[in-house]
Amino acid sequence: MNKQAFQDCYPDELSHCYGCGNNNEHGHQLKSYWQHFDEHTPLKNTTIARYTPSDVYTAIPGFVYGGMLASLIDCHGTGSASAMAYLSQGREMGSLPVLRFVTGALNIRYLAPTPQGVELVLIGRFSEVKNRKIVVDITLLANDVVCVKGQVIAVLMPESMLGNSTLS
Amino acid sequence: MNKQAFQDCYPDELSHCYGCGNNNEHGHQLKSYWQHFDEHTPLKNTTIARYTPSDVYTAIPGFVYGGMLASLIDCHGTGSASAMAYLSQGREMGSLPVLRFVTGALNIRYLAPTPQGVELVLIGRFSEVKNRKIVVDITLLANDVVCVKGQVIAVLMPESMLGNSTLS
Repeated sequence: MNKQAFQDCYPDELSHCYGCGNNNEHGHQLKSYWQHFDEHTPLKNTTIARYTPSDVYTAIPGFVYGGMLASLIDCHGTGSASAMAYLSQGREMGSLPVLRFVTGALNIRYLAPTPQGVELVLIGRFSEVKNRKIVVDITLLANDVVCVKGQVIAVLMPESMLGNSTLS
Repeated sequence: MNKQAFQDCYPDELSHCYGCGNNNEHGHQLKSYWQHFDEHTPLKNTTIARYTPSDVYTAIPGFVYGGMLASLIDCHGTGSASAMAYLSQGREMGSLPVLRFVTGALNIRYLAPTPQGVELVLIGRFSEVKNRKIVVDITLLANDVVCVKGQVIAVLMPESMLGNSTLS
């Protein structure tokens, strides 16, 4: 297990997501990692991402717009699910057949207005891990205050979305 | 009741939302309306919005990214809540004190991949209407197929978010 971002292990054909794809130059390019207890000790049930939204993503001036927060939670959730799937199968992330997850359901609670101009921290934990379904509970903090909580019910990407690729 | 978009009735100070604000030149500028049975007959429990996302909002090539879909549902929900609040108080939309809603919770189910390059239609219906809390159930369709269902639990914007404005 290394410190490479989960999204950097996605195959090129599946790296166009506006929220987290390396191949989407207009998008957010969120990066998710295993959280580490120290430099050498990853926590195997906790993931982390950090992101500072641009000020254009306004709700009302001074606060981040809810759609951006939902997007960050969504992409941190599917990325975390993919990483956990590889981990639980004892496989190197990115190896074939690909274990890429999509969102079946996304449940968000906005607990406090999220300030702009601040690095947001997303912490993911796993409440269910099955072969084709992984549930990730995510807490989003700004200035150490919990602003948003979300749950991503991630499902293994159906073959119909993989098209004619050689990833399956 | 006229055919003006709900978001066009928001006061200028509260029109910066990336999803639906007239004053956000980078954003989506979603427009929501009462759905009409015919030209002169609005349906007082149903709202509608139409939007065709740009192809940059990709999940994987060919499909719209879930964060965009969550954003559209979010803004259609809060816009619909505002319109319903004015309607149920018998007031003209946009009149003061302002009845602007924010999202307390957002629950989304992605039922089918949403194709790109297609006009998406969002239909909103109200399952709960109280003075400070309105619940909007939203169905998002592409090519007449239901792709996403969402529920927005909208709450009246707290005065702490209105700042020093004269809107309250």
